[in-house]
Amino acid sequence: MRLYDCAASANGYKLRHVLSWLGRPYELIPVDIFAGESHTPDFLRHKNPAGRIPVLEPEPGRFLAESNAILLFLTADTSLLPRDAFERAQVHQWLFFEQNCVEPNIGTARFWVLTGRARLHHPDVLRVRVEAGRAALTTLERHLQHEDFLVGGRPTVADIGLYAYAHLAPDVGLALEDFPAVSRWLARVKAQPGHIGALAPYPANAMVSAT
Amino acid sequence: MRLYDCAASANGYKLRHVLSWLGRPYELIPVDIFAGESHTPDFLRHKNPAGRIPVLEPEPGRFLAESNAILLFLTADTSLLPRDAFERAQVHQWLFFEQNCVEPNIGTARFWVLTGRARLHHPDVLRVRVEAGRAALTTLERHLQHEDFLVGGRPTVADIGLYAYAHLAPDVGLALEDFPAVSRWLARVKAQPGHIGALAPYPANAMVSAT
Ligand SMILES: N[C@@H](CCC(=O)N[C@@H](CS)C(=O)NCC(=O)O)C(=O)O
Ligand SMILES: N[C@@H](CCC(=O)N[C@@H](CS)C(=O)NCC(=O)O)C(=O)O
Repeated sequence: MRLYDCAASANGYKLRHVLSWLGRPYELIPVDIFAGESHTPDFLRHKNPAGRIPVLEPEPGRFLAESNAILLFLTADTSLLPRDAFERAQVHQWLFFEQNCVEPNIGTARFWVLTGRARLHHPDVLRVRVEAGRAALTTLERHLQHEDFLVGGRPTVADIGLYAYAHLAPDVGLALEDFPAVSRWLARVKAQPGHIGALAPYPANAMVSAT
Repeated sequence: MRLYDCAASANGYKLRHVLSWLGRPYELIPVDIFAGESHTPDFLRHKNPAGRIPVLEPEPGRFLAESNAILLFLTADTSLLPRDAFERAQVHQWLFFEQNCVEPNIGTARFWVLTGRARLHHPDVLRVRVEAGRAALTTLERHLQHEDFLVGGRPTVADIGLYAYAHLAPDVGLALEDFPAVSRWLARVKAQPGHIGALAPYPANAMVSAT
């Protein structure tokens, strides 16, 4: 099994996290996304038509993209994915919420801030994302006030999927102290097996210089 | 089975589409999201902590949010969701892509344009979304140049999930003529059972007046 990934990617972090939790061996293939390696004709035709990592190659020549689809694929038939149909649907609910409300806001804002891209647009562009990121954390806070984990009172792949960008919120100026239930939940997830520590900083060739 | 929905919602459209395709009866509960009905304490506590529709109540007192999680729940054990684990993962891949790249760009931009919210921010805010929507259609075009349907050469719930916002792209100025493979696929999906026609326009209380 191969994982095409970039050490600075928090979408990739989710997969390194779950593979560590499950203790599954894999070969990591670094892709230099800032040098265009995810937009070659071969990558776009066979690996991911969206030109992005992470991509999993579970067996030679078969490729799967989208971090949360890969999370579900890797945890099928493990204790991290509930068997009950309704609980499984709730796991899906949180993973879709992550891709719709957390990743495009906290994730994109963080990328823009840490690589200098924020200054390429009017400040409103960043501000709208950060405010939507705050709304997403408010949703999580509301839910986690009553729950120890996102679904079914025990750790599932939903917690792994949401942990990645939630724990990075401070990088866009969203203070986790304002979200005490989220903070307690982050600590709970971190204390589970498989925790992998901080993700790598963006490499030098990711940076956009002031012009 | 109850569906909490709003006639102008394209996320709701996906569910009305799949329920029509499957011929499943349901009770539609209209929620006036523009009058705050999805942000009452009861709605936030029991139906969806994100304060949004659509929400499915498959049996009394159980609530599921996120349109694509509901799509997967409704099509479990139907011919619209492949049984093969890898094909099913590919369905997930496209549904996550939809929530990450199509809905927050084409969907949000369309909402801003059609309800007058676009003028509340600097034009860059809208422009970034429309350009990301164009990139999402380009990804779809790349894939559909080689495929009649998104997964496995036959209609699946992924096609229903992606149809909703893809067919609305012209509302944000993205011409479907620029995406001929997407256009042919849209016509193919439309010709399948269950097609439900145009979705309702935004109601008067959705509009933001010029100030
Ligand atoms: N929705 C995708 C997002 C993937 C994504 O944004 N990947 C970034 C790195 S985190 C990438 O490959 N960017 C390169 C590019 O867009 O050219 C997922 O969850 O996997
Ligand atoms: N990711 C969600 C998006 C749901 C969504 O954006 N719903 C909108 C209508 S299309 C809504 O309820 N907005 C009311 C609000 O945010 O207050 C899904 O796919 O269901």
